[in-house]
Amino acid sequence: MKQYVVIGCGRFGSSVAKTLYELGNDVLAIDKNEEIVQEISEYVTYAVQADVMEENVLKELGVRNFDVVVVSIGSNLEASILATLNAKELGVKIVIAKAQSELHGKVLSKIGADKVIFPERDMGVRVGHNLVSSNILDFIELSPDYSIVEITAIPEWENKTLKELKLPTNYGINVMAIKSGNYINVSPYADDKILEGDILVVIGNTEDIKKIEKSSGE
Amino acid sequence: MKQYVVIGCGRFGSSVAKTLYELGNDVLAIDKNEEIVQEISEYVTYAVQADVMEENVLKELGVRNFDVVVVSIGSNLEASILATLNAKELGVKIVIAKAQSELHGKVLSKIGADKVIFPERDMGVRVGHNLVSSNILDFIELSPDYSIVEITAIPEWENKTLKELKLPTNYGINVMAIKSGNYINVSPYADDKILEGDILVVIGNTEDIKKIEKSSGE
Ligand SMILES: Nc1ncnc2c1ncn2[C@@H]1O[C@H](COP(=O)(O)OP(=O)(O)OP(=O)(O)O)[C@@H](O)[C@H]1O
Ligand SMILES: Nc1ncnc2c1ncn2[C@@H]1O[C@H](COP(=O)(O)OP(=O)(O)OP(=O)(O)O)[C@@H](O)[C@H]1O
Ligand SMILES: [Ca+2]
Ligand SMILES: [Ca+2]
Ligand SMILES: [Ca+2]
Ligand SMILES: [Ca+2]
Repeated sequence: MKQYVVIGCGRFGSSVAKTLYELGNDVLAIDKNEEIVQEISEYVTYAVQADVMEENVLKELGVRNFDVVVVSIGSNLEASILATLNAKELGVKIVIAKAQSELHGKVLSKIGADKVIFPERDMGVRVGHNLVSSNILDFIELSPDYSIVEITAIPEWENKTLKELKLPTNYGINVMAIKSGNYINVSPYADDKILEGDILVVIGNTEDIKKIEKSSGE
Repeated sequence: MKQYVVIGCGRFGSSVAKTLYELGNDVLAIDKNEEIVQEISEYVTYAVQADVMEENVLKELGVRNFDVVVVSIGSNLEASILATLNAKELGVKIVIAKAQSELHGKVLSKIGADKVIFPERDMGVRVGHNLVSSNILDFIELSPDYSIVEITAIPEWENKTLKELKLPTNYGINVMAIKSGNYINVSPYADDKILEGDILVVIGNTEDIKKIEKSSGE
């Protein structure tokens, strides 16, 4: 369990705060808007109304004692930069900050943000990938060359065993798990059969996976 | 290859449009702001300036001939709703719409959006999970019970083989791939050794993975 501070509880910040709290962590949520503080207070450990543009606010709230600070203010650049800078100056080890634009992101990195996040842009990339094939449900990019994708079995694969399908040879992918309804087979054998509606978790070369995305989307 | 329309090229919309185009699809980008149209035009097939609040705009642009429409207007609720409604009325099979709030999302679903996306909220959940352990790099939730995570090898695992570690027994997880520097081993054997800095892709029960997230974060 760790101690987190989330500064700015808009859509992104409040979602981060709730997730961290649900995973069993201590979360202090800060926002300058009293209504928003009220709303989030049910879902975090502490919620306080404070404006990070005012001097010494983070110091007085004891932010130095927290492990991680997440700065989630997008529209007020000055507040976002100030909060990031102050958190680093107070000695917080990990400061994550959300950026509104490339330039905003560069400034945040320069002043010490340990990680900069672009929620809209990054989610746009995910949604783009997911749209290209209605078969691709989710994915992890392991490297520029390799990805893991969750993919609905394409019709040609149904009622065949993994041995018959030879997916590594024919498609350049390895099957890591098969989801049949509520059952998940996490160590598939060569004799396991793919059924209609099964969801496969596969790992493979990104180019090979793109080919499946494209062919299955037609 | 499919034909996509992206309406509203803010941070989310432009990212979706670029990703779809990079994956080899035809993309028509629409925005009411001429400057934004100029910017996106290099990254898509066609870019046109148009205000979806004006009557018949989508009809005149031939949107009915496209496979998928992505409505990415957040701040103007009326425009977002109108664009979604018009696209469905023109007979577009799949209309995806971005929502600003729960209420906005409900309205979009009611009027026919086939999928509603909350970029900030959903990215907040991802970031929350990723923060809980600095070891968890990315994840896919397969079901409420099972997840796949990309995880940095914890120190106790270093210089041991998979056989020695007995991860399925000791941690409830199966290793699906091991990333060592630029090399990715997609079919790890029992004798493969985990080295310092290796990244493992594991599948397991969500509760078991949370335990690793928590212990490795301490
Ligand atoms: N100076 C400040 N001090 C504390 N909180 C602030 C400050 N400025 C903005 N906030 C809070 O940060 C939150 C995010 O606001 P912002 O206007 O940046 O929206 P946003 O970045 O578009 O958020 P999202 O897209 O995640 O909904 C709001 O709840 C706002 O009250
Ligand atoms: N009526 C409209 N017709 C066409 N385009 C529009 C219309 N209204 C807004 N847009 C465009 O939609 C894009 C998204 O604008 P919006 O103000 O909704 O930002 P947003 O939803 O916060 O975007 P993001 O968070 O993805 O950056 C802008 O580029 C804007 O010009
Ligand atoms: Ca935003
Ligand atoms: Ca999909
Ligand atoms: Ca937005
Ligand atoms: Ca992480």
